[in-house]
Amino acid sequence: MNQESIISPFSDEYFMKQAMQEAHKAFEADEIPVGAIVVCNNRIIARSHNLTERLNDVTAHAEMQAITAAANFLGGKYLIDCTLYVTLEPCNMCAGALAWSQISKIVYGAADDKRGYSRFSPNPLHPRTEVVSGIMEQESAALIRDFFARKRMSL
Amino acid sequence: MNQESIISPFSDEYFMKQAMQEAHKAFEADEIPVGAIVVCNNRIIARSHNLTERLNDVTAHAEMQAITAAANFLGGKYLIDCTLYVTLEPCNMCAGALAWSQISKIVYGAADDKRGYSRFSPNPLHPRTEVVSGIMEQESAALIRDFFARKRMSL
Repeated sequence: MNQESIISPFSDEYFMKQAMQEAHKAFEADEIPVGAIVVCNNRIIARSHNLTERLNDVTAHAEMQAITAAANFLGGKYLIDCTLYVTLEPCNMCAGALAWSQISKIVYGAADDKRGYSRFSPNPLHPRTEVVSGIMEQESAALIRDFFARKRMSL
Repeated sequence: MNQESIISPFSDEYFMKQAMQEAHKAFEADEIPVGAIVVCNNRIIARSHNLTERLNDVTAHAEMQAITAAANFLGGKYLIDCTLYVTLEPCNMCAGALAWSQISKIVYGAADDKRGYSRFSPNPLHPRTEVVSGIMEQESAALIRDFFARKRMSL
């Protein structure tokens, strides 16, 4: 552990734990367990989790709600100087929305080999958006595995 | 004009005119003028236009609102047996949302060479979604050109 990480509690792991709390709320609500938060100047300005089942709306992914909520909080539609933490790699829809938002940084947990945005070319994100992946990926992937295992058992 | 088009008034042009009416509403509200409708069994079940400025929300494209409104109308989140008419080629975000919706058909007007979904590979739409393009493309492109010309004059 270097000195900086001792002084500042605001690591990517710290904020990803908050996004994981949101993913657990989705799990409990019988939604595919993905959670997201938006951070600006080390302050959490939006929290959300997947609500596609409850809202009957394919657009209600955690990231989409987080973008809308963060813009509401900021009073402007661009998320420059903000970071999105999300437990699963964003899909193409969410990557497109994040591109329009011009968000500065995206940190995601587990990769999504089937639906993740990184399958697409050209890269759908904004060219100035920094991406960090793999933060708490084991925990995120395990939660999603547990969700689908429980679904299969209840069939 | 063939016999079928005399008997049925419900052509792609007929419905695209309805989407163009929505685009004109966006123009009057000082929004980038894009309009959309969703049709199911020849009935319009959702109408929308771009609201990104008024809502301060990059996700408030005409198509995104149309998907949400149509799903609300149908009481389910999939738009199988529905057609989206939109005056401009959907962006990547909207294509991703349309893919999740499993919509049967998309009809769009003008192509969007900079932001259109068709720039991306693999094709972001659902593999079973039929696409028709170029319906009223001149009118749609002219409205968008007029919008940006007016913007430049007001600077």
